[in-house]
Amino acid sequence: MRIAVFPGDGIGAEVIAEALRVLDALRLPGAVYLAGDVGAIAYQRHGHPLPQETVETARNCDAVLFGAVGDPSCDHLERHLRPEQAVLGLRAQLGLFANLRPATMFAGLEDLSALKPEIARQIDLLIVRELNGDVYFGDKGTRTRDDGQREGWDMMSYSEGEVRRIAHTAFLAAQGRKGRLTSVDKANVLETSQLWRDAVIEVAAEYPDVALDHMYVDNAAMQLVRNPGQFDVVVTGNLFGDILSDQASMCVGSIGLLASASLGEQKTAHGTFGLYEPIHGTAPDIAGQGRANPIATILSAAMMLRHSFGRENDAMRIESAVAQTLADGVHGGDLGGSASTKEIGDAVIDRL
Amino acid sequence: MRIAVFPGDGIGAEVIAEALRVLDALRLPGAVYLAGDVGAIAYQRHGHPLPQETVETARNCDAVLFGAVGDPSCDHLERHLRPEQAVLGLRAQLGLFANLRPATMFAGLEDLSALKPEIARQIDLLIVRELNGDVYFGDKGTRTRDDGQREGWDMMSYSEGEVRRIAHTAFLAAQGRKGRLTSVDKANVLETSQLWRDAVIEVAAEYPDVALDHMYVDNAAMQLVRNPGQFDVVVTGNLFGDILSDQASMCVGSIGLLASASLGEQKTAHGTFGLYEPIHGTAPDIAGQGRANPIATILSAAMMLRHSFGRENDAMRIESAVAQTLADGVHGGDLGGSASTKEIGDAVIDRL
Ligand SMILES: CC(C)[C@H](C(=O)O)[C@@H](O)C(=O)O
Ligand SMILES: CC(C)[C@H](C(=O)O)[C@@H](O)C(=O)O
Repeated sequence: MRIAVFPGDGIGAEVIAEALRVLDALRLPGAVYLAGDVGAIAYQRHGHPLPQETVETARNCDAVLFGAVGDPSCDHLERHLRPEQAVLGLRAQLGLFANLRPATMFAGLEDLSALKPEIARQIDLLIVRELNGDVYFGDKGTRTRDDGQREGWDMMSYSEGEVRRIAHTAFLAAQGRKGRLTSVDKANVLETSQLWRDAVIEVAAEYPDVALDHMYVDNAAMQLVRNPGQFDVVVTGNLFGDILSDQASMCVGSIGLLASASLGEQKTAHGTFGLYEPIHGTAPDIAGQGRANPIATILSAAMMLRHSFGRENDAMRIESAVAQTLADGVHGGDLGGSASTKEIGDAVIDRL
Repeated sequence: MRIAVFPGDGIGAEVIAEALRVLDALRLPGAVYLAGDVGAIAYQRHGHPLPQETVETARNCDAVLFGAVGDPSCDHLERHLRPEQAVLGLRAQLGLFANLRPATMFAGLEDLSALKPEIARQIDLLIVRELNGDVYFGDKGTRTRDDGQREGWDMMSYSEGEVRRIAHTAFLAAQGRKGRLTSVDKANVLETSQLWRDAVIEVAAEYPDVALDHMYVDNAAMQLVRNPGQFDVVVTGNLFGDILSDQASMCVGSIGLLASASLGEQKTAHGTFGLYEPIHGTAPDIAGQGRANPIATILSAAMMLRHSFGRENDAMRIESAVAQTLADGVHGGDLGGSASTKEIGDAVIDRL
C-alpha cells in the first residue's frame, strides 16, 4: 500500500495529520507513506505549485491523500503559477476523470443545514462529476474581434468516449446504491450537452436495472434546494459538477464534513488509482491553530481504503466511528462546538 | 403605450389574462394591446415556434408581456423547432441583453421556503443576468475528432463591450438598492471569466458609491443556500445566471411568485424596451384548469410599467396589492392554498 501524502497549504497539514493517525490506528499491513509538496508551499520551495517530482511521487503510489491548496499570498501571481493550477494539473496528468462527492446528512446534524430539518434529513446522494474534460480543459485565450474589441474565449466540448467512461462509473455507483441515476445537462441550448445526453442514453442500455432520468442544470440547481432527497446518483460534466457539488455540500451543513475521491482508469492491486481530499479549502483564517475540523479528510481516507485498496471493512469502520463521534456531540467550531482538531481525531480513533 | 401580449403555451393564457385585468384596473391612458403567437401553439399554427410576424409585433411595441412556452408534444422535434428556441430567438432578435430577476421573501411566506425561516427571511436580492452572449450564442456543433470519435462543442466567449454593457446595468441597479454588487465568474479556470472580471473592475471606477466584490460560481451556489441575505445585486453571465437565478427562486419558496424583465438598449418614450415574463414554465399538468398562480405574471406587468413606461407609482401599487393579497392568506395551490387563478386576480385588483 503506497500512499502519497500531499498536505498542501493552510489547514491542510493539520487535517491530514489526523487522517494519518486514524489510518495508523487501523494497523494497515505494509502501508508506506511518501510526502510531496503542492500548492503555495510548493511554489515557495520550488517555484511551481505542482513540481514534477510531486507528480512522479503520485505516479509511484496507489493513491494520493491530499489536503487543500491556496493562499492569499499567491493572488497576485499569473494564473499558471497559482495554487489551484496544481489541482487542475494533477487531475490532467494523473488522468483523474471521475470525481465522486457523496453528500449525506449525519444523524443529529440536521439543525446545521440551511435547509429545513425535514428536508435536510432526506439528503443521501452521490455526485459523479467528470473531471478531465469540458470547458475546463479545452483551448482558451483572449483575442481581438473584428470590431477591435478584446474577447475572452473557452472551448467547451465532450467526446462520446469521455461521456461513456464517466457514465459507466455513475451507472455502477447507482447499482451499488438505490439504482437511480439523474444525468444533468443543458441539452436545450448546448451541443456538448446534446452529445452528452445521447451518449448517456446509449450506455444506459447496459444497465437495465438502473432508472435513468435527465434534468436541465437550472432545474437541478432548483431541485437540490427544494427536495434534495429525490436524488440518488447525479452524473454531470466538469463545470456543472463544480457548481452543483458545492451547492449540495452546503445543503448538508458544514463543508468540513464532506469527502471526495477522484479516480483514474489505472488499476491497483485491489482497486483503482485515486486522489482523495476534503472538499473544503485551506481556511487561512484558522490555519495553524489546531481548530480545523479533520472529519472531511478522515472520511476521504476511508474512501481511499474503499476505492484504491479494496478495504471496504476498514472504510466502514472509519465511517461508523465518524458518525458515532458526531452523534456523541464531539463537534468542531464549524459545527458550533469547541473540540480541537486533535480531540476530534482522538474521538474517532477511540470509536474505531 | 403599445404592449405586445404573447401568452404562449400551457398556463400562459390563464396567467396573462389576470395580468391584463390588473393593468385594466389601473386605467392606463392609451394602452394598446397587440396579440402574437409564440411557442408550441405558434408551431402548430405557423410551423415555427417564433413566426416572423410575432417578432414584428414585438418590434412595433414598447414592451412585450410574455406568458410561458413549452409543451411535451414538441419533445420529438428538432431543436430549432422546439418552443424554447422562441425564447432564445426573441432575446437575440430583440437585443434583450439584460435579464433582471428580483428574489424577495414575501412577509408571511417564510415557511414555504426550503430554507430555514430565519435564513429565508433575509432574502432580498436582484440577479442581473447577461442574456445575449456566452456559450448560449457562440458557434456550436458536432464533429469527428482525429481519433474517430464524435464530439459536441460550444464556444464560450464574452467581449469587453458586452461585459461593460451589463455591468453598467448592474451598477445602476445597485445604486438604486443597497449599493452592493457581487460579480460571479469562474476566473480561476476560464479566460472568458478573466476578461469578464477585468471589464467589471474597469466599469467599477465609474461607480465609487457601489461596493463591488467577486465570487467564483461554485462558491456563489453555496452561499445562496448558506446565507442568501448577504447578497444585494448579483451580476453574472448567461450560463451561470441561468443556474443561479433558478436556484435563488427556490430559496424564496414558490416559483409561482417570481417575475422577470429582459431589457434591450432601445429607449421608449419613458423607459427601455423590454420583455416581461414569470420565471415559471407552462405547467402542462394543471393547464386550462384555472388553478395556476398568476402572481409572477402580475408582478412582471409591474416591472413592465416601471422599466418600459416609467410608471413607478403604478408598479408600486401592484406590488403592494400583491404583498397584501399574500399577507391576507389568498394563496394558490402552489402555496398550499386553494384560491383559483381568477380569485387571486380579483384579490389583487380589490387591493390596488
Ligand atoms: C480550484 C478549482 C479549480 C476547482 C474546480 O473548479 O474544479 C475547485 O473548485 C473544485 O471543485 O475542486
Ligand atoms: C428555456 C431556456 C433556453 C432558458 C435559458 O436557459 O435561458 C430558460 O431556462 C431561462 O432561464 O429563461
